[in-house]
Amino acid sequence: MSQEDLKQYLRTMSERIELAMDQLVPPQDQYPEALYDAMRYSLFAGGKRLRPVLTMATVEALGGDVEAALPVASTLEMIHTYSLVHDDLPAMDDDDYRRGKLTNHKVYGEATAILAGDGLLTQAFQVLGTIDAQGREAVLLRIVGELATAAGSVGMIAGQMADMENEGMKADEERLAFIHAHKTGALLTASVRIGAIFAEASEDQLLALTSYAQKIGLAFQIVDDILDVVGEAEKLGKAVGADAAHGKSTYPVLYGLEESREMVRRLTAEAHQALQSVPLRTNRLQEIADWLVNRDV
Amino acid sequence: MSQEDLKQYLRTMSERIELAMDQLVPPQDQYPEALYDAMRYSLFAGGKRLRPVLTMATVEALGGDVEAALPVASTLEMIHTYSLVHDDLPAMDDDDYRRGKLTNHKVYGEATAILAGDGLLTQAFQVLGTIDAQGREAVLLRIVGELATAAGSVGMIAGQMADMENEGMKADEERLAFIHAHKTGALLTASVRIGAIFAEASEDQLLALTSYAQKIGLAFQIVDDILDVVGEAEKLGKAVGADAAHGKSTYPVLYGLEESREMVRRLTAEAHQALQSVPLRTNRLQEIADWLVNRDV
Repeated sequence: MSQEDLKQYLRTMSERIELAMDQLVPPQDQYPEALYDAMRYSLFAGGKRLRPVLTMATVEALGGDVEAALPVASTLEMIHTYSLVHDDLPAMDDDDYRRGKLTNHKVYGEATAILAGDGLLTQAFQVLGTIDAQGREAVLLRIVGELATAAGSVGMIAGQMADMENEGMKADEERLAFIHAHKTGALLTASVRIGAIFAEASEDQLLALTSYAQKIGLAFQIVDDILDVVGEAEKLGKAVGADAAHGKSTYPVLYGLEESREMVRRLTAEAHQALQSVPLRTNRLQEIADWLVNRDV
Repeated sequence: MSQEDLKQYLRTMSERIELAMDQLVPPQDQYPEALYDAMRYSLFAGGKRLRPVLTMATVEALGGDVEAALPVASTLEMIHTYSLVHDDLPAMDDDDYRRGKLTNHKVYGEATAILAGDGLLTQAFQVLGTIDAQGREAVLLRIVGELATAAGSVGMIAGQMADMENEGMKADEERLAFIHAHKTGALLTASVRIGAIFAEASEDQLLALTSYAQKIGLAFQIVDDILDVVGEAEKLGKAVGADAAHGKSTYPVLYGLEESREMVRRLTAEAHQALQSVPLRTNRLQEIADWLVNRDV
């Protein structure tokens, strides 16, 4: 399948996810308007929609009900967006721009940004707890557990906490691996696992897909670190060298650029191997793995 | 049943809930320690444990499995605590003390307080999504929906947003009713409803208990407003007159003290009536209604 095909797929899927999210978040003409306006500002600020796309592609790979999976996939993007809104706050990373647009608190003020983040986080669970379960309550409850564990205090939040403590000091290899596995890896892995659980994957399939997700999750983060050093500010929508400016340890800092690139190649190969270990219609997942490595943004 | 009985009941129940929460939150010697320490600091800072007590008393009133309800009841306290941690932040109410102790961000700093709040919020859903459902996944998934809806952007968060906008300006009666119904009412009502859903109440019972909860929820908030005017700072653990200092509209400001007290009496009577409309073992729920009105803290 050609690169153009994947681009078209990503575009179409993003549109479907955005349409679903638009239905799932309160309208912005409802009181208190500023809250819903702020939630929607960050939710519809663009981005690759990588997490819900991974969920959808996994459901497809397993022959699951793609249409029914849309609201479930949307919850991954809500969680991801809340984490960006809170991470950008002055007390945290203190970032003014995200994807080339002003960050939430720069537009709505800190208090509203905190509440908008809280709102998006809670919205994800409201969606899972109130969509028509069609008799599959056990599946949806398991997804609640997966999502909360990945996003919560032993997952993404632990990663953000560790990353903050990492500011201005040299993290060692073990610490850096913890940060990446938790801050970005946990939710990326959950994106694939939730798709697999939704489509009622076998235990073997779930294990293989989990391995795939962990590999591309780490590769994705190393590519991010590399782009922070060698990327173009305009494409990234933020300043190049921001990690270094924050005094953060990254893969290029710890291992050098060439070794970091080699790690990405190795992880991508392992991700492909994981997919081949079980029978699945994995074309899209393979294309996504390659795209993540070769992207420039 | 005597007042002493209720005090003993509240004490015993609080201990059981705290024991349950201790099991459900990551231990504070686990990395990153500061995150779990901060989550536990606020979670175990005392308080009436009103919300989980309401859940437990409702389960009892319906003859449900009290022991199995403990983790579910705990999630109400996690959500309540997260909301206090975020509300106290400098960007929000900027409070230094809560229940006579330094607020979370005064001890751990703003960034950790934001993450600790996020962690407690997410922990609630992790508990619901991962406890042994014992075949009752549909019940637990419905509870996820109830909790998220009450706590989220059309519930508690909408109330906090409206309350913030209310600062320094005179809210009218409609606005004040919105704030109270959402900021405190939604989660208090959910506390009772979740107990009822857990114990598989009939639709009639659920309606009666919902009405009871709405009445005592509003009465509770009006009593809070009254205590902010006439209470003793020492007992409250915070400055008296804080609402007035924040320029907030309250029931005593809008209606006067005597009319506010009359509203509390009327709401309490209506709460009792609601309970009597269906067959239930409601002694405890009645005692709790009376206690909430007569408390001085």
